[in-house]
Amino acid sequence: MSSGDLRRPLTVALLGGGTVGASVARILTDSARDLEERVGAPVVLTAVAVRDAAKERPGIDPSLVTDDAAAVASSGVDVVVEVMGGIEPARSLILAAMEAGSSVVTANKALLAADGATLYEAAERNGVDLYFEAAVAGAIPLLRPLRESLAGDRVTRVLGIVNGTTNFMLTKMDEEGVDYDEVLAEAGRLGYLEADPSLDVDGHDAAAKAAILAELAFHTRVTLDDVYCEGISRVTSTDIHAAQAMGFVIKLLAVAERADGGVVVRVHPAMLPRSHPLASVRGAFNAVFVEAEAAGEMMFYGRGAGGAPTASAVLGDVVAAARNRLSGGRGPGESTYSNLPVLPVGAAMTRYYVNLDVADRPGVLASIASAFADNGVSIQVVRQDGHGENAGLIVRTHRASDASLRRTVEQLSGLDTVKRVLGVMRVEGEAGE
Amino acid sequence: MSSGDLRRPLTVALLGGGTVGASVARILTDSARDLEERVGAPVVLTAVAVRDAAKERPGIDPSLVTDDAAAVASSGVDVVVEVMGGIEPARSLILAAMEAGSSVVTANKALLAADGATLYEAAERNGVDLYFEAAVAGAIPLLRPLRESLAGDRVTRVLGIVNGTTNFMLTKMDEEGVDYDEVLAEAGRLGYLEADPSLDVDGHDAAAKAAILAELAFHTRVTLDDVYCEGISRVTSTDIHAAQAMGFVIKLLAVAERADGGVVVRVHPAMLPRSHPLASVRGAFNAVFVEAEAAGEMMFYGRGAGGAPTASAVLGDVVAAARNRLSGGRGPGESTYSNLPVLPVGAAMTRYYVNLDVADRPGVLASIASAFADNGVSIQVVRQDGHGENAGLIVRTHRASDASLRRTVEQLSGLDTVKRVLGVMRVEGEAGE
Repeated sequence: MSSGDLRRPLTVALLGGGTVGASVARILTDSARDLEERVGAPVVLTAVAVRDAAKERPGIDPSLVTDDAAAVASSGVDVVVEVMGGIEPARSLILAAMEAGSSVVTANKALLAADGATLYEAAERNGVDLYFEAAVAGAIPLLRPLRESLAGDRVTRVLGIVNGTTNFMLTKMDEEGVDYDEVLAEAGRLGYLEADPSLDVDGHDAAAKAAILAELAFHTRVTLDDVYCEGISRVTSTDIHAAQAMGFVIKLLAVAERADGGVVVRVHPAMLPRSHPLASVRGAFNAVFVEAEAAGEMMFYGRGAGGAPTASAVLGDVVAAARNRLSGGRGPGESTYSNLPVLPVGAAMTRYYVNLDVADRPGVLASIASAFADNGVSIQVVRQDGHGENAGLIVRTHRASDASLRRTVEQLSGLDTVKRVLGVMRVEGEAGE
Repeated sequence: MSSGDLRRPLTVALLGGGTVGASVARILTDSARDLEERVGAPVVLTAVAVRDAAKERPGIDPSLVTDDAAAVASSGVDVVVEVMGGIEPARSLILAAMEAGSSVVTANKALLAADGATLYEAAERNGVDLYFEAAVAGAIPLLRPLRESLAGDRVTRVLGIVNGTTNFMLTKMDEEGVDYDEVLAEAGRLGYLEADPSLDVDGHDAAAKAAILAELAFHTRVTLDDVYCEGISRVTSTDIHAAQAMGFVIKLLAVAERADGGVVVRVHPAMLPRSHPLASVRGAFNAVFVEAEAAGEMMFYGRGAGGAPTASAVLGDVVAAARNRLSGGRGPGESTYSNLPVLPVGAAMTRYYVNLDVADRPGVLASIASAFADNGVSIQVVRQDGHGENAGLIVRTHRASDASLRRTVEQLSGLDTVKRVLGVMRVEGEAGE
């Protein structure tokens, strides 16, 4: 059955010697015997390409360290692991590795979301594997189940908490009543924020992961540019309190779903019922909730970041790629056969929560109800808060297209009975219509 | 790279035409185009072996139905799917299928737990795949991640809620204060109980799954006989209330963990802190919580039973086996290279909750504390409930070996200051010592 030599050593080279790279190198050494048993042959680390070869790197054999990444990439080892991040030179190095016949394992979500197609095509053309379990939700084994275990099912929706920093921030705001600016400062002090904090708080990191998830779930090419993205910087204490009063919690969600003959992919803060499995995902944890036709509802939960968790996912991919090298086979490649249109967020079917500061005079509710009706949006609940000068009105809608909900909010803002729109947020994870 | 003909049709035959078999047949037909894209070739159902070929089976082409299971098993199709259950004739049929060169997909937890070794060895000998994702936790993609995604990591512990019926019952007891007999009757009315209810309530079903999980997680052969097993029939309202008062919830847990140089596998009711991710797994859902050295804590959640969810898992395996046939490769086989000793439950490190009806006289606490100290068990919390004739004492311990905890309880029962032991239960999922 096998075209390879069953016991020849498998060679692995690392591009990147940062936190994740060092963890990968350490596990390759410390667990060498386990890995040999699981792969069916010894796994040997041949090189670690870093920017500064002079820097001390505990746990990495200094004789393996080099600053010549191009030479490492094209060295023709069995598996090249790319954990340097960024678009370039990562992309060129990965392509060079594939041209040299190496399978590639990467944790590079930014590159996959920006230009995955180039990598997938190169893997196909060169007959090598491209694995990237660590690129989404760190240590959580999620992409392999999505690609393989659900290969006989039809995924309808993916809802994920895929950015640990914003989940930590929203958890603090919910549980401790801390406001946004304060919790942002705390996340910074704890070293949770990316060098460019907007990657976290504006949802760009989550959007890259959403693109990757959507592509695998729906067998359709999705890039970062296809993802609608709203961050958490406009989540207020008013929103948090309103959510609590209604039995909801606010999470930054990555949503990818079938809608209107296509796929919509979006990242934004959303209210979730506290009984939803994602609602109890606290702090820096990640979780992805998947709905499939036959399997029903599933959730995958775990650590989304960190050197060791990410290294665990990378090593799982290394073992898979190494096994394929030995057996002369290949893992399932990327598949975009469904080729569904990726639709704008307006096509998404969702619900809104709208919090309005309204004038206290007869006919207010009628004018507001008309604005919803005019746009074909059906109201689920209206709750009046306070009275007189402080009259507030909280409306929750039934499901409608995001476009019509947005038009409704615009129309409401123009009403003279509405003094101010205090808050608008999508509501996800409720059963029924 | 490939030794197969890339577009020849892949043939699949079913052994069993019950709920799961019918769902599998339906998806094979309804999703034929999707499956063809994902496998890389058409997937054709060739036969469905059933006990009564005369019975009408909606969704299954009558011309495929036969009662000659032996002929179907040895027909040499690419993949034989066994969803009939039970030990025999399932085992002989699976072995015949492998001898005929077919890969096998099965959902048969009882057979795998009783005699998996025979099947694994036959798969190895015949160079075919043996997949069984549906055997544990139904639709939840769990075994593939454990076998493949965590292949570069070291699992230390697996905690699972793997029997939906008992979880439904315990959830009702916890949330609605229903007592055991009442909820057992309700589970029966709802058709949730197996034909032999003891499979559910005495923990045997969970124990079979625990054996399979332990084998995959620890690369060590584990059979049903190695699993310590206690059911839920002795869980009382007193236990439920005591758990609630302490912020715990009672779940039937399957636990497989490294201990004392070996592995301990056990199934029993246990108290879990309400903040633990498993605590919020309600009703008939299943979830498996995995702790690994590098990846940290993970949880897999979803539907544990039902025709469609189980069929989803079966189809995922069919796609994997079919892809391997086309590429001429094989998936990772079973591996028992670690070959750790499977130790008795006494070696497990755990904590106990002990609820005592005690005499109200001086020196009671001292005599009780001595019983714990004599066995080297350290007390975490003591709480006195009531006073006078109704004085009750609730003790929670620190971690100690199950054997020493058990000896402590025996010694307590013999004390004349202890009128009655009202409840004893293991406590899991707490952090620290």
